Amino acid sequence: MKLQKNAAGRLVPNEVNGEKLMPFMGVNKYKPKGVKAKPSVRSCIDYPMDGNKVVKNLKEALKKAGLKDGMTISTHHHLRNGDALTNILFDTIKGMGIKNIRWFPTASFPVHSHLIKYLEDGTIHHIEGSMNGPLGKFTSDGKMKGVGVLRSHGGRYQSIQDGEVHIDIAVIAAPTADPFGNATGDRGPSACGLIGFSLADSEYADNVIVVTDNLIPFPCVPWQIQGNNVDTVVTIDSLGDSSKIVSGTTQVTKSPDRLLIAEYVAQFIDEAGILKDGFSLQAGAGGTNLAFLLFLKDRMKQKGVKARFMRGGSTQYLVQTLEEGLTDYILDGQTFDLEGVRSMRENPNHVNTSPFTSYNFHGKGNFASLVDVAVLGATEVDVNFNANVVTHSDGYLLHGIGGWQNCLYSKCTVLAIPSFRDRIPVILDEVTTLCAPGELVDVIITERGIAINPLRKDLLKAVKGSSLPIKTIQQLKDEVYEICGGAPAKPKVNKDKVVAVIKWVDGTVIDSVFQVVK
Amino acid sequence: MKLQKNAAGRLVPNEVNGEKLMPFMGVNKYKPKGVKAKPSVRSCIDYPMDGNKVVKNLKEALKKAGLKDGMTISTHHHLRNGDALTNILFDTIKGMGIKNIRWFPTASFPVHSHLIKYLEDGTIHHIEGSMNGPLGKFTSDGKMKGVGVLRSHGGRYQSIQDGEVHIDIAVIAAPTADPFGNATGDRGPSACGLIGFSLADSEYADNVIVVTDNLIPFPCVPWQIQGNNVDTVVTIDSLGDSSKIVSGTTQVTKSPDRLLIAEYVAQFIDEAGILKDGFSLQAGAGGTNLAFLLFLKDRMKQKGVKARFMRGGSTQYLVQTLEEGLTDYILDGQTFDLEGVRSMRENPNHVNTSPFTSYNFHGKGNFASLVDVAVLGATEVDVNFNANVVTHSDGYLLHGIGGWQNCLYSKCTVLAIPSFRDRIPVILDEVTTLCAPGELVDVIITERGIAINPLRKDLLKAVKGSSLPIKTIQQLKDEVYEICGGAPAKPKVNKDKVVAVIKWVDGTVIDSVFQVVK
Repeated sequence: MKLQKNAAGRLVPNEVNGEKLMPFMGVNKYKPKGVKAKPSVRSCIDYPMDGNKVVKNLKEALKKAGLKDGMTISTHHHLRNGDALTNILFDTIKGMGIKNIRWFPTASFPVHSHLIKYLEDGTIHHIEGSMNGPLGKFTSDGKMKGVGVLRSHGGRYQSIQDGEVHIDIAVIAAPTADPFGNATGDRGPSACGLIGFSLADSEYADNVIVVTDNLIPFPCVPWQIQGNNVDTVVTIDSLGDSSKIVSGTTQVTKSPDRLLIAEYVAQFIDEAGILKDGFSLQAGAGGTNLAFLLFLKDRMKQKGVKARFMRGGSTQYLVQTLEEGLTDYILDGQTFDLEGVRSMRENPNHVNTSPFTSYNFHGKGNFASLVDVAVLGATEVDVNFNANVVTHSDGYLLHGIGGWQNCLYSKCTVLAIPSFRDRIPVILDEVTTLCAPGELVDVIITERGIAINPLRKDLLKAVKGSSLPIKTIQQLKDEVYEICGGAPAKPKVNKDKVVAVIKWVDGTVIDSVFQVVK
Repeated sequence: MKLQKNAAGRLVPNEVNGEKLMPFMGVNKYKPKGVKAKPSVRSCIDYPMDGNKVVKNLKEALKKAGLKDGMTISTHHHLRNGDALTNILFDTIKGMGIKNIRWFPTASFPVHSHLIKYLEDGTIHHIEGSMNGPLGKFTSDGKMKGVGVLRSHGGRYQSIQDGEVHIDIAVIAAPTADPFGNATGDRGPSACGLIGFSLADSEYADNVIVVTDNLIPFPCVPWQIQGNNVDTVVTIDSLGDSSKIVSGTTQVTKSPDRLLIAEYVAQFIDEAGILKDGFSLQAGAGGTNLAFLLFLKDRMKQKGVKARFMRGGSTQYLVQTLEEGLTDYILDGQTFDLEGVRSMRENPNHVNTSPFTSYNFHGKGNFASLVDVAVLGATEVDVNFNANVVTHSDGYLLHGIGGWQNCLYSKCTVLAIPSFRDRIPVILDEVTTLCAPGELVDVIITERGIAINPLRKDLLKAVKGSSLPIKTIQQLKDEVYEICGGAPAKPKVNKDKVVAVIKWVDGTVIDSVFQVVK
């Protein structure tokens, strides 16, 4: 592994896990050549003509799929911290004596700390996918055999489509499925809304196993995953703990500081001229985001303005917006609560999307760049508007990228963040890990002021004379440093050991995460 | 071009239009190797970030797509005999001075006789796709420069997916679309239901042009065609004559003979034990088929039986079946009347399907083989249960294959046909053109008796003792020959000139169509 500086000036390796990497070349600079991944042509001759693909159990399905040492196995994270299947899957793989699996989840959660023993004993070689919490800490401590690779949701689709990651076996948790393999996430005892993050897996993996705890007669409608891409179907008692399938972070914030940020966001969107009939926005979960949506709705009602579409993760608040007629559509990437699940199941204007439609940068356009305003979070922002979403200032890798990088392409990207957390500044001279190139971050909104990227002269002009506390990013940083007593201590890291790389939306490497030393 | 006998004993060429062909090897004998077609990887960099792909006109879009002599251009036939776009398209191509186009429609109709002049002047080299009526006659007369290639709907998907046919430019008529290229057929002034026959085109063509007469703001929901696969969008005044978009053959027959056939079909399905809770059927349009559905509904009501799904083409009668609660779902491949269009738009249990889900033989199974009973027509059947659906006994190629070959894979395939037409026997010693290998045809139902394929001992046993007029196929043929005065005259054909080849569902050639001479 050799480190080189990429176009953002960050040190990145030229290869990890025996695979070559391309350094980040700048925003919109790398242009892919070549053709998409090439799945094998199959024939109906090799599948049961009556459409019944059910096999006895997961072990049988894995055997039939030809499971071998060193294979790549993928899973999705729509069951979030309630996911039982992935742990059962790796218990099974361990029981079969298989080693060195590359685990390629769409994300991992604290519930997957069960897998740490398999990372230790060599069942799993490394993880490519977001590592939220314990697995991230394990990785940061330098304990994973291979190097982690983190991609955005769109980057994951791109990597499969472009043939960078070849999935041998995709294991798809399906809250409802039929024996042919058609599957949906919007109903059943483990309903999680949609399962679109598995779309690429179903299209490109050599072998696709659908696992369900709610098998119904053909046809399973809607078929978010198409049985025509599925090899076998397995039933189990339960896919997971349904109370934890929906995220717990869907309560509106009560913090006065966060509420102030939320009010500023709504005011900014209004006064910058974005809030007009037919506008669109992306709002995720998280207490601040939910609050901002409520403030924005008030302004929409006052002005008589209706949105054309809003993008989720959906929550009860987004669903209310749709049901009150304040938006024509929700274009949803994942459902964060049960109201989101219900609405997606019942309301044809609550549309499920996939990383292909929403985020794939190597397609003929994607939805993300059509959005008028995206309101996102961040762990750190620096004075050049660069932002971090994966590590904390102590160097620990504790969060995934999600669709965050993809959403930066919206027409106006707002990071709504507190200026400091636990007395550690969030606005800094330089981010610990670079996830967003500053030129794509338009506005930083904190409880103590708003900084607009100088590149966005249009926005600066639009809010001139507004009552919003517009400041320079430097001013904001200085204020925060004064409160917190200066810059946070630099993380103690081993610069010789890259524990994970961060991909940009085009598959190049934008930054490295290094081993944290004590 | 050299002719050889294939496994069915039919003479087929080893190449046409400079491309090699494989002879039919028998049902379920040919197993494909290799990988799927490989579309180029694209990048959002090359598409407008605001999602607006609208260009001035069709000529502009074709120029942008790099239209050149000899290219393959595809269109769909969901607008049927009301299609104006395809004629406008080739007027434009002619105006640009382009020659030798391979036209690759999903089917052609009498309205496309406008294109005969372009077949004559070399603008179009040949047609690969069904030729209903005048274009079929033109081809049969030996006037087309190249050789026609006829495929089933599933075979067309298979040929694109497998890379046998590379589409340079797909032109997709979209009754409603947005500037990003998302498109649907279920609404708008030229609504035709679905446009799923263009799915493969949108996925695999180098360049995809969506043409609409109803442009709406993003997002166009549902997106039967995904804008992420679309290069440019063009608006025109009208896609076609909406009164002719829906087929005129959707009236229940009044002929006593056809009504008798329809009654026999319903009785057979009942007495053969197929009519039970959760059963499924495929019924197309055509007067006999519509009548049989009405008789079957009576029996369903009497028995208190509900179907799990019914497959269309949908008509008002199928829609009524759904709305009366006699089936859980309609799985629809194309809508044959305006009630079908409305139902698909409004009823989530009226599901649109595609040749990929329904018919592609080179996938991991398809829907067609899951259907309990499919009731189809035919132009000819022979004493070995072989059937013909494309030519008449005079040798003229006047019909397309449609989904007919694909549906032969149902658990029970019934051909519901009159025993003669215009005093010409429909049951013969040998079919003029082989489209269905006899082993896949289970039952022939005519007004003068029912013949069950001897391979289906189970069905023969099931209807033993029934009041149905069960006969041998030989008996039926003898009766018909007696009425009509023997076998029809053999068509006068030039065996040295193949004018079209008929593909089997796996891409091999099952038969040839020869030039008709006078």
